[in-house]
Amino acid sequence: MRGFAMRRIGEVGWVTREKPRPGPYDAIIRTLAVGICTSDQHTVYDGPLGELRLIMGHEAVGEVAEVGSEVKDFQPGDRILVGAVTPDWRTLECQRGWHQHSGGMLGAFKFTTTKDGVFAEYFHVNDADMNLARLPEAIPLESAVMVADMVPTGLHGVELAEPAFGAAVCVIGIGPVGLMAVAGAALRGAGMIIAVGSRPVSVEAAKHYGATHILNYKEGDIAHQVAALTGEQGVDAAIVAGGEKGGQGLFQAIRMTRPGGTIANVAYFSTGDTLPIPRADWGLGMGHKTIKGGLMPAGRHKLETFLSLLEFGRLDPARLATHVFHGMENIEEAWHLMRAKPADLIKPVVIY
Amino acid sequence: MRGFAMRRIGEVGWVTREKPRPGPYDAIIRTLAVGICTSDQHTVYDGPLGELRLIMGHEAVGEVAEVGSEVKDFQPGDRILVGAVTPDWRTLECQRGWHQHSGGMLGAFKFTTTKDGVFAEYFHVNDADMNLARLPEAIPLESAVMVADMVPTGLHGVELAEPAFGAAVCVIGIGPVGLMAVAGAALRGAGMIIAVGSRPVSVEAAKHYGATHILNYKEGDIAHQVAALTGEQGVDAAIVAGGEKGGQGLFQAIRMTRPGGTIANVAYFSTGDTLPIPRADWGLGMGHKTIKGGLMPAGRHKLETFLSLLEFGRLDPARLATHVFHGMENIEEAWHLMRAKPADLIKPVVIY
Amino acid sequence: MRGFAMRRIGEVGWVTREKPRPGPYDAIIRTLAVGICTSDQHTVYDGPLGELRLIMGHEAVGEVAEVGSEVKDFQPGDRILVGAVTPDWRTLECQRGWHQHSGGMLGAFKFTTTKDGVFAEYFHVNDADMNLARLPEAIPLESAVMVADMVPTGLHGVELAEPAFGAAVCVIGIGPVGLMAVAGAALRGAGMIIAVGSRPVSVEAAKHYGATHILNYKEGDIAHQVAALTGEQGVDAAIVAGGEKGGQGLFQAIRMTRPGGTIANVAYFSTGDTLPIPRADWGLGMGHKTIKGGLMPAGRHKLETFLSLLEFGRLDPARLATHVFHGMENIEEAWHLMRAKPADLIKPVVIY
Amino acid sequence: MRGFAMRRIGEVGWVTREKPRPGPYDAIIRTLAVGICTSDQHTVYDGPLGELRLIMGHEAVGEVAEVGSEVKDFQPGDRILVGAVTPDWRTLECQRGWHQHSGGMLGAFKFTTTKDGVFAEYFHVNDADMNLARLPEAIPLESAVMVADMVPTGLHGVELAEPAFGAAVCVIGIGPVGLMAVAGAALRGAGMIIAVGSRPVSVEAAKHYGATHILNYKEGDIAHQVAALTGEQGVDAAIVAGGEKGGQGLFQAIRMTRPGGTIANVAYFSTGDTLPIPRADWGLGMGHKTIKGGLMPAGRHKLETFLSLLEFGRLDPARLATHVFHGMENIEEAWHLMRAKPADLIKPVVIY
Repeated sequence: MRGFAMRRIGEVGWVTREKPRPGPYDAIIRTLAVGICTSDQHTVYDGPLGELRLIMGHEAVGEVAEVGSEVKDFQPGDRILVGAVTPDWRTLECQRGWHQHSGGMLGAFKFTTTKDGVFAEYFHVNDADMNLARLPEAIPLESAVMVADMVPTGLHGVELAEPAFGAAVCVIGIGPVGLMAVAGAALRGAGMIIAVGSRPVSVEAAKHYGATHILNYKEGDIAHQVAALTGEQGVDAAIVAGGEKGGQGLFQAIRMTRPGGTIANVAYFSTGDTLPIPRADWGLGMGHKTIKGGLMPAGRHKLETFLSLLEFGRLDPARLATHVFHGMENIEEAWHLMRAKPADLIKPVVIY
Repeated sequence: MRGFAMRRIGEVGWVTREKPRPGPYDAIIRTLAVGICTSDQHTVYDGPLGELRLIMGHEAVGEVAEVGSEVKDFQPGDRILVGAVTPDWRTLECQRGWHQHSGGMLGAFKFTTTKDGVFAEYFHVNDADMNLARLPEAIPLESAVMVADMVPTGLHGVELAEPAFGAAVCVIGIGPVGLMAVAGAALRGAGMIIAVGSRPVSVEAAKHYGATHILNYKEGDIAHQVAALTGEQGVDAAIVAGGEKGGQGLFQAIRMTRPGGTIANVAYFSTGDTLPIPRADWGLGMGHKTIKGGLMPAGRHKLETFLSLLEFGRLDPARLATHVFHGMENIEEAWHLMRAKPADLIKPVVIY
Repeated sequence: MRGFAMRRIGEVGWVTREKPRPGPYDAIIRTLAVGICTSDQHTVYDGPLGELRLIMGHEAVGEVAEVGSEVKDFQPGDRILVGAVTPDWRTLECQRGWHQHSGGMLGAFKFTTTKDGVFAEYFHVNDADMNLARLPEAIPLESAVMVADMVPTGLHGVELAEPAFGAAVCVIGIGPVGLMAVAGAALRGAGMIIAVGSRPVSVEAAKHYGATHILNYKEGDIAHQVAALTGEQGVDAAIVAGGEKGGQGLFQAIRMTRPGGTIANVAYFSTGDTLPIPRADWGLGMGHKTIKGGLMPAGRHKLETFLSLLEFGRLDPARLATHVFHGMENIEEAWHLMRAKPADLIKPVVIY
Repeated sequence: MRGFAMRRIGEVGWVTREKPRPGPYDAIIRTLAVGICTSDQHTVYDGPLGELRLIMGHEAVGEVAEVGSEVKDFQPGDRILVGAVTPDWRTLECQRGWHQHSGGMLGAFKFTTTKDGVFAEYFHVNDADMNLARLPEAIPLESAVMVADMVPTGLHGVELAEPAFGAAVCVIGIGPVGLMAVAGAALRGAGMIIAVGSRPVSVEAAKHYGATHILNYKEGDIAHQVAALTGEQGVDAAIVAGGEKGGQGLFQAIRMTRPGGTIANVAYFSTGDTLPIPRADWGLGMGHKTIKGGLMPAGRHKLETFLSLLEFGRLDPARLATHVFHGMENIEEAWHLMRAKPADLIKPVVIY
């Protein structure tokens, strides 16, 4: 079968692989649609994980092609969603409540790091009964594929932020994850939602998803702008979905959050030895500004509850899919489009 | 000044009182609008608190008429909202985190129980800086008055229920409080929302506010109907806003909730010695079905965050106000209308 | 092999069984010591589960005799502890965070309800890597066997109660579970600990484990006695480990707890249709007295953290083992001793 | 009256002041005993707050000398404890649940920053009913004075860390606050407790208070030593009570904590623009290692619950008071002793 892979650091291209085979608890999925994600591009062009030569891609919906002998809940032909995170569920980390770190920190993120990803005709999923989610017919593929990563990551920012009804929330960065954090904050009952970003296509989407105010870092220090909007109180929670460079998104989030508030990071910091906490704004260590950060949750239960938000009309991520390609071969074009990031792009999707 | 009061158990009517005067931290409010609440009618016709002869009413918006010498944040002419609950804030109960029970269990509920209520030309509010909320001009009076009790009580059901994103929630009872619990569950990111009720006006409002399914107890055991809708799993949380008689709403809520789920009561149980927990369905005591119940939260901060939901368009309680009267003298008609409960009534409001 | 079983309702005796065999993820344990538990006696003499004819017993430590082909962390000869609760870990209930209810409410309690128990030469444990706990050499068998059920159940009462540092806690019932709740409350930093019970051997043990006050229901209404001790405030949390009859333990726990407090049940209610909540003392439904109840947590991680409390000298359950028998054949005598409950008995243990 | 004050940056000495007078809700306290705290010495010798010229000291027990007209619960002659933190309780910050930040971040810390401290014959306490705690006769003064700051601060580290029963905890820094964090972790049911420090007097005290392992940074990288002790898993929680320089205590705490764990800071970082988060060890932003930090809680309720731990024998901070002076004039010697920090010193106390 064919797949779109990292060939060496800085280079991608099509490769041929044997079709994968399932272990007793596993499934092989025939891909129906995939999303292109910037984190794969970091893997290829920055090379933090080395020269992996794996098939790229970790966002997919598909159809079950084959199942192992012990799989009970799924059978060939089932329409399913797979999370970007596919944990082993029989581990002490899961018993502790942290499936994302099953097998070690971030250990449940397997596609493109320890095994081939989803930019292929078929791909392998471990523990199918626990890691596949049944996909309702009514949800279109370009929406469903957003629930592999963008929706769970953006909404996890909100889960970490824990805004109360009417809380003031700031979302830093309004790429697709940040936009889902905006939508998630509105869906969680936040009041004021401040979105920080400048690309017009994203600004419009942020307003659509519930942002009440838009801030642009070019118009002055963001924390000062937030202070002005909140009567010098700061926000109850700040969600970091951008500003990775030098940890500036996190740094500003801590500054703009009021004592007793929460900073929730879902950004991936790929460079630098340390991330900076502003000492004085963190109350000299005693300001009760809690700093969290975590990988998206996954597993069948969690994915199906996220899907139910689409099913019942609470959330519609379709607007993220600004560019929808048809035909697997267009993965290559979509990949390069994501890299070029034209003005009208939020996220490219490829339907096979 | 005039007020509409309980004269004796079973009888209401107009009375004349001296205009109240503020202590140093208090305010006197000139009433602008009030809501009529069934709990006052329990007080009058069932007489659980005795023959109080107090002015009725605990839902009001108004204008500050006079403030005590120590009031800092408000002055005459300010447009404000008052919560049905007006705690003393300098108590050990507040230090423990339970302002609702400041001075003893339910001690913060003062109007109509320990002092005159709001169905008057003027009324008194203790600790104005802590118990008044600034009312944005953009919010109409008939919406704002719902934030005195209906919104905080309904949304408190959701706060107690703590639904995760995509959770399945059942709301038992769809009077005005139950409807706000439905709206609050949707606003908190629930997926499936099952509303239990039968009056057509309420059913339509429940759908409007986000209910995905409506159940009618006349069509069979509610817990069985919920089991059928949820693949025999039960809901993640049940909010009790009705079914007070014999505690049946609470009883059914426990039955229909899955192990590990939460039952959140905001109904006022006015009769009977005990409320029943179904032993087997509660897992013989070990099913991890947590039973909560609590009085609405209040205070300036909380009320203003609830108001921000209206201000930013997240929640619109106006649909509750099916009957809006103009002129204080119509309190009497509105009162009797609430008692008669015609088919098209959800809640009467009187704008002075 | 031999085992001590329920023969019919009301009758126990020795039986002969084939030695069990492991599935690929399972282990067979050679029993080293067992504890006798009253809940087995309810199963036999009250017959709530029917005429099961299974081997009794759910508290055991042993040595691994045989493992399935997929077991990685344990091998024959390992000294281990098994929890009374042995969940399947690959279920949606576990993904939701409720391993106790894996496969359905209380579904993880398997010994004596859906499979043979531990009163035998050998017994079977599903998913050995997840359900066995490594037993440090330094912990004697009669202490270790208390960590199968008494320690996790008693301490789970405390986990549910969530007392803050210095909280006032009441433990109702001071059998072995209640005594571990007392010890757990002290170990969790409670201040005043009131224990309710009357048997002298238990009263002495309760004081040893940290009770500051002892109440006897024969000396007047317990809730009134608690009110007197706490300046009419009530306790912050009440843990129910007794008073099963008519749900009286739970009923009193609700009465004696202050608004905002928690009632934590770990008692097994075996009879009656309903359990009573006192309506007025529960604040007419609005008193913020949260009622919880749950089955003990289990799994390797949790059991090993409980064992670490013994290993590091934080908790010593040895005092519970008032009667230690040597020789498997003494299970019969220990069983009848538990039923007769002489004055000096807390818990019998049999070392093989 | 006389007081021991900062005269200018770098200089302390005796001053004469008018005896303070109470406002209507306040009290004047006659000092009975005080503790000397290093943070005052930072204020004087590093001068971060400027040349304040205020009386120093924020740890005191005393006797009520005079009360304002509105004080209800205390009267002259009452033996009381005052917290280092004395909030205004009628603020929106308190309504939000953050009394420590009443009036602004850290705003409740008033002694020595915005008003005279306690190293005087008399001192002033705002809102006496809310900020004084009744001191049981049985608690000696040198123990009680530790509950003004050392006990609440150390135990707050544990409150923030939220260790489960049997959790592995590391406490970085074993001055008096760190020692109370060790004691608090044991009192909260932690299993393994690793204390990091090197002074023999503190090491002995740490073992006494429940540390199971002692690490010395001179013997190699602390995070590596912790990894070796925990089977390369890391601790469940790390409490930072030292290592302020360059934020190294916090930095190491993040490194040594496992994914899903908590870092709880109670150290006061007095220098530097930023504190460093180790990027890779923080899971590239996604490791679910939560970083908290907060000022001690206070108020009558909280202080009295801490005192109940001493009253009921759960905690004995007396060992911290290695040097007890008698006579107010010895504040000067105690102050300089604290600065010199001889080998046998943990904390000096002066009893008037």
